[in-house]
Amino acid sequence: MSHFVAVVSGGMDSTVLVYDLLKQGHEVSMLSVDYGQKHRKELDHARRTAAKNGLRHEIADLTGITQLISRSTLTSDAPVPDGHYAEDNMRQTVVPNRNSIMLNVAIGWAITLEADGVATAVHSGDHYIYPDCRPEFVKALDRLAGVACEGFIADEFAVFAPYVNIPKDEIARIGNTLDVPWDDTWSCYKGGDIHCGSCGTCFERREAFTLAGIDDPTPYAATPDYADPR
Amino acid sequence: MSHFVAVVSGGMDSTVLVYDLLKQGHEVSMLSVDYGQKHRKELDHARRTAAKNGLRHEIADLTGITQLISRSTLTSDAPVPDGHYAEDNMRQTVVPNRNSIMLNVAIGWAITLEADGVATAVHSGDHYIYPDCRPEFVKALDRLAGVACEGFIADEFAVFAPYVNIPKDEIARIGNTLDVPWDDTWSCYKGGDIHCGSCGTCFERREAFTLAGIDDPTPYAATPDYADPR
Repeated sequence: MSHFVAVVSGGMDSTVLVYDLLKQGHEVSMLSVDYGQKHRKELDHARRTAAKNGLRHEIADLTGITQLISRSTLTSDAPVPDGHYAEDNMRQTVVPNRNSIMLNVAIGWAITLEADGVATAVHSGDHYIYPDCRPEFVKALDRLAGVACEGFIADEFAVFAPYVNIPKDEIARIGNTLDVPWDDTWSCYKGGDIHCGSCGTCFERREAFTLAGIDDPTPYAATPDYADPR
Repeated sequence: MSHFVAVVSGGMDSTVLVYDLLKQGHEVSMLSVDYGQKHRKELDHARRTAAKNGLRHEIADLTGITQLISRSTLTSDAPVPDGHYAEDNMRQTVVPNRNSIMLNVAIGWAITLEADGVATAVHSGDHYIYPDCRPEFVKALDRLAGVACEGFIADEFAVFAPYVNIPKDEIARIGNTLDVPWDDTWSCYKGGDIHCGSCGTCFERREAFTLAGIDDPTPYAATPDYADPR
């Protein structure tokens, strides 16, 4: 049994990760990040998962640096693009260096808690537009943590990314097996009352349930079809 | 000529770095970090350097994560220890993973600015207690940035750490050659009206001037002697 600081956005993947780690008998402390995202509802959803499982949950306030790193449509006044997640316009949703910043904050907290590692739910479907979700990123971050914190963390300290080589629909299947309450997860980048169904992450969510053969319980405002351009 | 985001605390080393980069003809944007440090005066000193040289200067507000990563005496209510910088009690001043967090924020800003790299003034005297100041740290961070931001930064993007293998007194010599106004630099971790002269960074500052054979213009409250325990 290990103690992980899991970075939990409140979306499907990171919520499944929490249930998965708990099922495996690990201790989990949840870290969410407030970076001024439009879809702040995801933070409320992360809170639900923490409360339901009695987990320590902290929301790291990084809004102080949002203005610095503001090119992304997720934090600026520009509209979030519609379309398939793998389309070029989705690159507008990239917050430069986001995962390195978030996971390094998680590593700092994990050291303070004397935890055994950090866990992230990056998956293979993210690789196309987010370079900081690939296996080589996880490896480089793990290497950096070992060097940066030598003497302050155990040699076994790990950046744990169990889904880095599997697609999102496989995560949906794992979540289904674990009875993850999908109502406690939020994907939509637009952050309206219900999922828009049209933005990249909504489409990705819909596609994951469909490919996994799971009934999607999510209410959507619209359900347009998009072809995967890859 | 390159454009660097330099991480500038307002201390001797990072201030010399700014003058050094400018002398070499580079463009410099300055990033300071407010992490709730007791010695906030250093931020005012960084502002002076920016103003005097007409440089863009941003202070990244990371106080929102200070409570998470709070073991250090630099940010907690515990007293900052006196003594030689290399003594074991100085390890209490370590903020877990600080340089990884700060430099990754700098990398994010550099990408937003389309700069060519980030610059840090870590030096060989820091290696003993700060693992995140060593050449292998710089190398691991450079590797991480290349992987995390592939497609968003140029292949030539670099983490530039020109002092990583030289001691602080050599930085003092470089600063002297460059006519760095030492009054614009602040070292003391206690953050009083004048440098205390007794804490680890004050002692390191005094030692650097002495070893460099430069008259130290800094007013100190006290000037105790400490032996280097290494």
